[in-house]
Amino acid sequence: MIYLDNSATTKTHPDVISVMTDVMNNIYGNPSSLHGLGVKAERLVEQARRVIAKKLDCHPSEILFTSGGTEANNLAIKGVADQLQSRGRHLITTSVEHPSVFEVMKQLEEKGWKVTYLPVDSWGRVSPDAVEKALTDETVLVSIMHVNNEVGTIQPIHEIGQRLAKYPKILFHVDAVQSFAKIPLKPKQAGIDLLSVSAHKFHGPKGIGALYIRKNVEITPLLVGGGQERGFRSGTHHVPGIAGMAKAVVLTEQQTNFLARCQEWKESFLDHITSKLQPVLVNGDVTGEGTAPYIISLSFPGLKSEVLVHALEEEGVFVSSKSACSSKLETPSRVLKAMGRTDQEALSSIRISMGYDTTKEEIEQCAEALIRVVPKLQQVVKVR
Amino acid sequence: MIYLDNSATTKTHPDVISVMTDVMNNIYGNPSSLHGLGVKAERLVEQARRVIAKKLDCHPSEILFTSGGTEANNLAIKGVADQLQSRGRHLITTSVEHPSVFEVMKQLEEKGWKVTYLPVDSWGRVSPDAVEKALTDETVLVSIMHVNNEVGTIQPIHEIGQRLAKYPKILFHVDAVQSFAKIPLKPKQAGIDLLSVSAHKFHGPKGIGALYIRKNVEITPLLVGGGQERGFRSGTHHVPGIAGMAKAVVLTEQQTNFLARCQEWKESFLDHITSKLQPVLVNGDVTGEGTAPYIISLSFPGLKSEVLVHALEEEGVFVSSKSACSSKLETPSRVLKAMGRTDQEALSSIRISMGYDTTKEEIEQCAEALIRVVPKLQQVVKVR
Repeated sequence: MIYLDNSATTKTHPDVISVMTDVMNNIYGNPSSLHGLGVKAERLVEQARRVIAKKLDCHPSEILFTSGGTEANNLAIKGVADQLQSRGRHLITTSVEHPSVFEVMKQLEEKGWKVTYLPVDSWGRVSPDAVEKALTDETVLVSIMHVNNEVGTIQPIHEIGQRLAKYPKILFHVDAVQSFAKIPLKPKQAGIDLLSVSAHKFHGPKGIGALYIRKNVEITPLLVGGGQERGFRSGTHHVPGIAGMAKAVVLTEQQTNFLARCQEWKESFLDHITSKLQPVLVNGDVTGEGTAPYIISLSFPGLKSEVLVHALEEEGVFVSSKSACSSKLETPSRVLKAMGRTDQEALSSIRISMGYDTTKEEIEQCAEALIRVVPKLQQVVKVR
Repeated sequence: MIYLDNSATTKTHPDVISVMTDVMNNIYGNPSSLHGLGVKAERLVEQARRVIAKKLDCHPSEILFTSGGTEANNLAIKGVADQLQSRGRHLITTSVEHPSVFEVMKQLEEKGWKVTYLPVDSWGRVSPDAVEKALTDETVLVSIMHVNNEVGTIQPIHEIGQRLAKYPKILFHVDAVQSFAKIPLKPKQAGIDLLSVSAHKFHGPKGIGALYIRKNVEITPLLVGGGQERGFRSGTHHVPGIAGMAKAVVLTEQQTNFLARCQEWKESFLDHITSKLQPVLVNGDVTGEGTAPYIISLSFPGLKSEVLVHALEEEGVFVSSKSACSSKLETPSRVLKAMGRTDQEALSSIRISMGYDTTKEEIEQCAEALIRVVPKLQQVVKVR
């Protein structure tokens, strides 16, 4: 099996599983308990917090653990919105965000908030100028993703952060779920106030994520109760998940050439595919640093995404149609449409996404499988 | 080590760990993915949903997975409150709820809701009459826990459900975190509309829970995004946690005499303790079926909870002062105060809580340890 759906989720690293098993067997206490077994669990949580903080170059107290990226995004946006509503009720985001940002915006619109959805160019990028122009006296938050989950486009976060630095009252949230532990991004350097992370996107456990929240930024908690995580996020800590997440971060650091090798394989892959197949469209900027090298998005106009995904699966290659969470919807990708693709182009896209365990051979075999499969499917469509 | 803090959290069962490890190694797909590995993960989730549904005698579609009991309680109460606010803004609960209910009520009060906190008797029970008398035309939800986390008091849920059956527009939520998979409670028989569950309280994984939500009951989701869990709870499924939770339920069913043996051990324990030590107060009803047999709450007026907990720990016995999540606060227990205990009595309480893996010998050794430790501590206090 060749698994190339790493943007949907990754295989949990065996060392992460070992850590989790060890914690579940031996340090099963509740970190909130007074006794020694609770204290041991609490130490694990704080140790993990330091690992995540180090990765983001921030203070450990600026890291909150959540149940995943969706909760981190919901907490960041709703938490700021609730906290700052008296100052203004305008939010800015882009038209290509993950549903866990996009749908939060829709929910807030229903509650009377005004939301600006900025357009993107044909590579999926938002313009920093456009962000600044969209600011009003009512704006309290700008939320823009780092790496797009469907096509891999990298947004100009630093440039946007620089523009926003002139407006210290407006907070800047970044959904870094697809980039954390892959493409470096330090919140303080980039002028980011809140940043979302999910562990299962980099071979960590499912059910755990984190939110960076800059010191002195106040948000209204979504989950209240026992007062864990400084009151920002109540609920018994998912200790094995938290320890596993930290382990996964450490493991990614042991591989220094991840981006370079993905870029090399991606270029060869695209050269090969575009020379052998047509029509084929590459979504996103493939020429330089505009797209994450570990995500490849292609459209094969005339074919259907689902048919392609299943045909590749029969060849032992697992990819996805668009994002995992919207893959069961038969509507054209909102992201590709925002980038100017037609319905037909958007409905014929597939996403190939690499993980830290992906090999060159797997990418080559994926290309071969596509080269075998696509002409056959095109033939079937023609005959019909 | 004798671990008797099972109401804070339990040791994950080795078979649960095996299931989780197997899922992480082999079925690591995203249930939302179209391909076979996604489908396999989705099947695991649906299989687990059926296990939980069977336990609650409801339809699988009435079960939502959450990140734990705190999220389930927050989602139930805030979800209903948001959905039904146009009908009225009054909620009813008790003065002895877990913080994940109590603090939600406080948060809603800040947003203009009216909340009635019903008193309890000296055993910690709320009166079904009082619930009915508190209903107003504005009431949209009644939220009452099944088993109290600090003292084990079992609330008269069926009687309350019967009273509420006359008011079909008023929803009934039950926090069953401390009772699920221990003391049977079928929502449909008891007239319950929403019921919260947490896996790590019965030897399942941390970071996973569930909310029963009766068919046709609408709630506003807290976490929006990919639209998982019928749109009520977005976020990539915590598949290993979900499968582990189902396994833990199945394992509890293999032990049929859990309540009977806990009751027997508890009675011997209390006979022993009360004959050897004084002053000692037993919190809750110990004479019959009014308190969960797996929770023992005692007060040793004159001593301090924390001192007792640490002294017992030195004897190798791990218990808790009150609830885990509030154990680091030095205020007297809100629950014991509501039951009429004085500050001094409430500040001298300890909670001993059994799990499915607790043995008779452990309970006996805990009694012996208390009998050794308490007089010594009393002597120290006297000398001072």
